[in-house]
Amino acid sequence: MSVQPSPDHAVGAAVKAADRAHVFHSWSAQGLIDPLAIAGAEGSYFWDYDGKRYLDFSCQLVNTNIGHQHPKVVAAIQEQAAKLCTIAPGFAVDVRSEAARLVAERTPGDLDKIFFTNGGAEAVENAVRMARVHTGRAKVLSAYRSYHGATAAAINLTGDPRRWASDTASAGVVHFWAPFLYRSPFHADSERQECERALRHLEDTIAFEGPQTIAAIILETIPGTAGIMVPPPGYLAGVREICDRYGIVFILDEVMAGFGRTGHWFAADHFGVTPDLLTFAKGVNSGYVPLGGVAISAEIAATFDQRPYPGGLTYSGHPLACASAIATINAMAEEGIVENAAAIGDNVIGPGLREIAERHPSVGEVRGLGVFWALDLVRDRETREPLVPYNASGADNQPMADFAAACKRGGLWPFVNMNRTHVVPPCTVTEAEAKEGLAILDEALNAADAHTA
Amino acid sequence: MSVQPSPDHAVGAAVKAADRAHVFHSWSAQGLIDPLAIAGAEGSYFWDYDGKRYLDFSCQLVNTNIGHQHPKVVAAIQEQAAKLCTIAPGFAVDVRSEAARLVAERTPGDLDKIFFTNGGAEAVENAVRMARVHTGRAKVLSAYRSYHGATAAAINLTGDPRRWASDTASAGVVHFWAPFLYRSPFHADSERQECERALRHLEDTIAFEGPQTIAAIILETIPGTAGIMVPPPGYLAGVREICDRYGIVFILDEVMAGFGRTGHWFAADHFGVTPDLLTFAKGVNSGYVPLGGVAISAEIAATFDQRPYPGGLTYSGHPLACASAIATINAMAEEGIVENAAAIGDNVIGPGLREIAERHPSVGEVRGLGVFWALDLVRDRETREPLVPYNASGADNQPMADFAAACKRGGLWPFVNMNRTHVVPPCTVTEAEAKEGLAILDEALNAADAHTA
Repeated sequence: MSVQPSPDHAVGAAVKAADRAHVFHSWSAQGLIDPLAIAGAEGSYFWDYDGKRYLDFSCQLVNTNIGHQHPKVVAAIQEQAAKLCTIAPGFAVDVRSEAARLVAERTPGDLDKIFFTNGGAEAVENAVRMARVHTGRAKVLSAYRSYHGATAAAINLTGDPRRWASDTASAGVVHFWAPFLYRSPFHADSERQECERALRHLEDTIAFEGPQTIAAIILETIPGTAGIMVPPPGYLAGVREICDRYGIVFILDEVMAGFGRTGHWFAADHFGVTPDLLTFAKGVNSGYVPLGGVAISAEIAATFDQRPYPGGLTYSGHPLACASAIATINAMAEEGIVENAAAIGDNVIGPGLREIAERHPSVGEVRGLGVFWALDLVRDRETREPLVPYNASGADNQPMADFAAACKRGGLWPFVNMNRTHVVPPCTVTEAEAKEGLAILDEALNAADAHTA
Repeated sequence: MSVQPSPDHAVGAAVKAADRAHVFHSWSAQGLIDPLAIAGAEGSYFWDYDGKRYLDFSCQLVNTNIGHQHPKVVAAIQEQAAKLCTIAPGFAVDVRSEAARLVAERTPGDLDKIFFTNGGAEAVENAVRMARVHTGRAKVLSAYRSYHGATAAAINLTGDPRRWASDTASAGVVHFWAPFLYRSPFHADSERQECERALRHLEDTIAFEGPQTIAAIILETIPGTAGIMVPPPGYLAGVREICDRYGIVFILDEVMAGFGRTGHWFAADHFGVTPDLLTFAKGVNSGYVPLGGVAISAEIAATFDQRPYPGGLTYSGHPLACASAIATINAMAEEGIVENAAAIGDNVIGPGLREIAERHPSVGEVRGLGVFWALDLVRDRETREPLVPYNASGADNQPMADFAAACKRGGLWPFVNMNRTHVVPPCTVTEAEAKEGLAILDEALNAADAHTA
């Protein structure tokens, strides 16, 4: 990296003071946060106003798949800004048409109609609406250990503690357990058994809920923030078969896993499964402009051929967002960025994390693929007791706070959730950057080891 | 306008064909639409690929308050794109701090903390969540004849037919009637009586719902898509007083009315009323980049000082969006754009519409202010029977379709909803442009007159 941050403490202090005066932050106790002021970013790095540079192993919120400030995407935004920033969703416009074509070209199967939103939550909201209208049924099944967004329908589908404050007492939603062999809800001892039992559990849940009451099953193809649990072979195909049998719409949420993160354009490509609806956001344009969407099967699209689709938003198919998606997708294709993510995962991060795990008693499991990995940290490898309790805060969460602080001291910005750290660098990460990050993680895990039993 | 569209039919046809192949449009029967392909836009105009130019009296979806392609906003987007497109919401960043400061400086009273979202629906979702957590109560009261967005909570608050397909049987929402003298729900015959009766109706509804069950009352300060009904003097102050009496959070939705549309920065400024939460989007940056938000009172912000706010989104306070908001707000201030909206409303559009109304039996009422006006079209001025039935479609809606077609033939793009046309040009509209538009409307109203009784 040639970019050299030039420290300017006074500016940084002013930015932070203005932030504390007027900015209300997501998911935070406003009086307890001390947000780091960011001065700039490029590629796999960002830096603060004190001249400290961080290797971005978080991709912010796992969205900058193409890294920071990719020149082709920056240029596309600048060119589109000069041409046409915004136009209502009712019109046809060149960049909207082309972005839809490029997404549709990559989505599995016949998911060829694209409804654009501003982000992942709205994508999920609309996918659920499409499924409900298409089937005429109300209920949606979703998994514990999941995240689908924070608007009312999306947060109620979510299976993590962020749901609770907005919980509408599960009206319209039923949660079930998806496979996760390391912490098996089914007491299974092999991937094959986990898969069989998870499918049986889903079948049983459907039978007792009443198949004719269920509009959709929604799953993250590979759950993201909840822990990057790669489903066992056969599971998603099994869910697809169950959905077909009962006329249930199968929604795969690829907001985090899509667009190269797993080493394929979509995580569904690993499993040869085509959902009826696929939600996306983040990686579609690395979040350079807010954008998300739903890719829609021919059958569901046909439902809204003569009948109005009862949903919409002012910025659907926003020209600036679409232009950035076009540039992102084309750059990813031209530069082999998806292939790079796969190779880095197979050759550097996967082997590197497994080697690190051998040295650190706090690492219970290494799992993932591409640039989408989790370290499941434990107090005790035998019992698999998590390093911190579920939804811990304050002193209970000290072991993870110590680990995160050690990463930052070492110059790496980690993605930490509960008892896990996720290794989610950009799909553009080089071998040298990946190794640099692994070395920092290796050192920082000593802080986690200190809390093992 | 010096911009001369250069026709290119073939490109336009290709854009439209690609649109029909892959783009799924908001609120539409996909097989029945024929979207116009747009080639460009500037100021108060946009144009298609056939060389036809339209005076934009819709501001798209009433969002381009600063007109199309304002050079200062375009430049700000280009500069920020070169610097930093995206950063996670947990950090402090200069443009986010400054955008929050500029918004807070303009919002009424102590609404000084800003939670940024991607648009209006998410702003409403989060305002409702804040109110529910703050009060510990579940129910929200909203008005019939309203629109608050299309995500699950927002669409259920909405009081128009777009709610029905996503209706969760009013779980958590109670609709009441707001004042609208021309079609009075209270059989009133003066503004004063309408105001008194509307407040009495709200009080009675609260008494029978149970004040201690009600988290919030949400109102568009001046309802937008539902008909631009300027509330009578005293109404909003009365609602404020009722909210204070019962500890109910007062939310004003200024997604459409805010940022200059009414000739003030916020419509609330006309009434001297400060809500507890104020939602905004659209005009904050004219939709050049998706952006919305909630301005939060000191008291509600304090609730989340030691306790985490249970909501968030990946693109909250998006740098590119914030940079465009800064440029928009500063340009509006420097160029007197809000004052222009007020003057054009007082001196040109208001008098012009009233004069036009005299010539056209189809115009039942002219109402509005600033660049925010509605013509309520009727079959019969005596009975006030709407020109088309509520939620009409197909042949039933022919009178409005004829009127809209006549506007477009004349070179004006209208905003049409049910039996109304709204006159919502940019706040930057010149006197000459406003008069050009009024002349086209005058002619097009003959098509509506043909359907009067």
